[in-house]
Amino acid sequence: MTRKIYSILFLSILFTIILCSCENSSKDQETNKPNIIVVFCDDMGYGDLSCFGHPTIKTPQLDRLAAEGQKWTSFYVTAPVCTPSRAGLITGRYPVRSGFMGGVLHPISKGGLPQSEITIPELLKDAGYSTACIGKWHLGHLPQFLPTNHGFDYYYGIPYSNDMDKIDAVKDNPMEANINPEIRFFNVPLMRNTEIIERPAQQTTIVKRYTEETVQYINDNKEGPFFIYLAHNMPHIPLFRSLDFENKSERGIYGDVIEEIDWSVGQIRKALEDNGIAENTLVIFTSDNGPWLRFDQQGGSAGLLRGGKGSTWEGGMREPTIFWWKGKLKTGIVSDMGSTLDFLPTFCNLADVPVPDDRHMDGFDLTKTLLYGEKSPRDIMIFSRGNDVAAIRKGDFKAHFIVRRDPELQEQLPLLYHLGHDPSEKYNIADQYPEIIDELRLEAEKFKKTVIPVVDQVRLR
Amino acid sequence: MTRKIYSILFLSILFTIILCSCENSSKDQETNKPNIIVVFCDDMGYGDLSCFGHPTIKTPQLDRLAAEGQKWTSFYVTAPVCTPSRAGLITGRYPVRSGFMGGVLHPISKGGLPQSEITIPELLKDAGYSTACIGKWHLGHLPQFLPTNHGFDYYYGIPYSNDMDKIDAVKDNPMEANINPEIRFFNVPLMRNTEIIERPAQQTTIVKRYTEETVQYINDNKEGPFFIYLAHNMPHIPLFRSLDFENKSERGIYGDVIEEIDWSVGQIRKALEDNGIAENTLVIFTSDNGPWLRFDQQGGSAGLLRGGKGSTWEGGMREPTIFWWKGKLKTGIVSDMGSTLDFLPTFCNLADVPVPDDRHMDGFDLTKTLLYGEKSPRDIMIFSRGNDVAAIRKGDFKAHFIVRRDPELQEQLPLLYHLGHDPSEKYNIADQYPEIIDELRLEAEKFKKTVIPVVDQVRLR
Repeated sequence: MTRKIYSILFLSILFTIILCSCENSSKDQETNKPNIIVVFCDDMGYGDLSCFGHPTIKTPQLDRLAAEGQKWTSFYVTAPVCTPSRAGLITGRYPVRSGFMGGVLHPISKGGLPQSEITIPELLKDAGYSTACIGKWHLGHLPQFLPTNHGFDYYYGIPYSNDMDKIDAVKDNPMEANINPEIRFFNVPLMRNTEIIERPAQQTTIVKRYTEETVQYINDNKEGPFFIYLAHNMPHIPLFRSLDFENKSERGIYGDVIEEIDWSVGQIRKALEDNGIAENTLVIFTSDNGPWLRFDQQGGSAGLLRGGKGSTWEGGMREPTIFWWKGKLKTGIVSDMGSTLDFLPTFCNLADVPVPDDRHMDGFDLTKTLLYGEKSPRDIMIFSRGNDVAAIRKGDFKAHFIVRRDPELQEQLPLLYHLGHDPSEKYNIADQYPEIIDELRLEAEKFKKTVIPVVDQVRLR
Repeated sequence: MTRKIYSILFLSILFTIILCSCENSSKDQETNKPNIIVVFCDDMGYGDLSCFGHPTIKTPQLDRLAAEGQKWTSFYVTAPVCTPSRAGLITGRYPVRSGFMGGVLHPISKGGLPQSEITIPELLKDAGYSTACIGKWHLGHLPQFLPTNHGFDYYYGIPYSNDMDKIDAVKDNPMEANINPEIRFFNVPLMRNTEIIERPAQQTTIVKRYTEETVQYINDNKEGPFFIYLAHNMPHIPLFRSLDFENKSERGIYGDVIEEIDWSVGQIRKALEDNGIAENTLVIFTSDNGPWLRFDQQGGSAGLLRGGKGSTWEGGMREPTIFWWKGKLKTGIVSDMGSTLDFLPTFCNLADVPVPDDRHMDGFDLTKTLLYGEKSPRDIMIFSRGNDVAAIRKGDFKAHFIVRRDPELQEQLPLLYHLGHDPSEKYNIADQYPEIIDELRLEAEKFKKTVIPVVDQVRLR
């Protein structure tokens, strides 16, 4: 009898152990879907972080992420201005496919990201993610275009650029308003979900409040998985920063702003570590396009790259990019190409959800480069201008077919640069490689053939 | 009697202990003088290391030194060309004081660093150091000017630039010889002490051999203290690198050369660690002047700085500088000013030997900045042109009184830039700060009054 009791007890314990381990393993699988945070700046230049070579802007938090993660030195956005760049990121498709051929949406715009597009948060929601958009959206501010209608559970932010909605009193001299700004000059709304909760948005504390919202969302969703798209309005002009950062940077107000964003990244890291989820959260830091050079010292620096915001030179579309996932990434510097286009397939892989197969997708899955340091699968990048291809990079070579505002260069088109040897696009070598020009022209034509004409959303007024 | 024996024994033991501890303490003091290694490149640009923002040159060894040590982002040499820059470093005085007003020595030169100058190795020898100069000297190649006549126990290297002594066959087209070089085109000697041991120097293996010599010297002198001045001939054109580095860098041959120098730094680190003396050795890495931009892709990049070799813009005289002393330095990024002028007083302090007080010295002791992160004592930097002051930086402001080859800018002189806000010297703010211009002009005049006229060594033929 005693023996039977022991046997039963033994079997019960065994059964319990098996059950528990099954549950554990299923829970593991659930938690194996990593949280994902994309920190997306506005108009930050390639050269504006310490770890990308700026001498007077101090970014210790970002430098630390870079040292512990991967610093990508040839990472591209899909357009040199806000709206199309964001469309490319969120859809994983060149923006021309969703109706963004260049230019940005304005408060009077009637267009926005079409519902027919499939977004990263929509895909991640299918995989069980909570999703939040905090910050600048700029893919349509009419109700049907807002983040909460594009896959985000939650939205908090200024829906477009922080220099818009200028009041009549400053409309005659917008430059002056931009560089000597007051909050009241820019009657931009701050929204929570679909409601305006503040107008004009108090921009002085905007980085701080975006950070608090992000940390709150992390705390509230620590069981995961979650996706946070934190799109700062800064360092786009007009520049504002909170009291703690006034006159903090040797770089002046632009540096103050970057250093507050760096602080913000540190707060996010701290929240992840405090909640014990840093090892299960991929954090990406980059920006939407290059520095707005016309604002002189209030604009950023593209470092050694040529050009800035609005141009298809490298300075317009190559961004200082950092991937961090505590203890998980193959640490180091990656000079292979990557793009915000690649977020979608990479996240789909990590979240174990299929990439849409009913449309032309432009991204590559970077997982193996991130985790194991394998060569990046991306070998090509298109630099669009309207419906046309202004430039194209394949491997180390970049050909320019359209350049703006430079009659002397225009006469020499096409231009060819070797970006490995000449990242500053200084030495045109088109004469030496006519066959490369031909090849790149063919690639451009091939790309154009994949583009199905759609309505230009920016022209809808 | 027994008691007396005990007393004597006791006293003997006590005496022995005291003697031993005295000897220990004296030996400690001896070894407390750190070894010092200065790695000095030739024509390397501000933007040519990964940790200073280059996207395709990979410098993991230097990045690691920077992360474990101090990365200085406003570190100046004393001239934008080889010879005077080296004079400034080795004497701790602006080169104009020792007879180097600009320009460089050539094989036909009869001049060199005067014996009346006191050099770093001479001072360190007084403090018990062994001293070696390995690499490019370029402060006079006639016997009386050689390193072994200026305080170095040992010399191994090419005594001037690696593009000199061109053979007659290539003299008609020197540019072509420089960018499509062969060893035989440059009949430069390789010397050991005062003897020529190879001619033409086999430049392909020159970085490798300089490294082997340095490692050997470390091994032979591990009891210390020692001072090694390793002045690479590279990346000055003509570019050569050893087989192991051929086509290794995405940056092309210039990158190959930098990456071999990075490897060399790793070998030095390894030698120090293998000998257990890394915690007692200060290593400094910098270059003599900015990149030689006229050589296009075979020249380097000044990153976001303006200008290059030969100019008094920042790109000509600000160099990517790293201090490393395992476990000893306050790690981080230092954006305060420093200069190769400061080596002499800093080394004198570390070696406990007085700085010469019979002449005008221009350096500041950086020890407290290095060890404790205190503010750098340097607040001013002179940019000379001939006997004149072309530009001057004080605090964040830099005024230019002379610029070359730019008639449009020349009409606007003086120019003023805020290097904290505007490290690229893009936005002239002279109109806004006439009082700063006045102050800087006064400082320039003050400096000029301290210069005692001496023979121009470069003109001696």
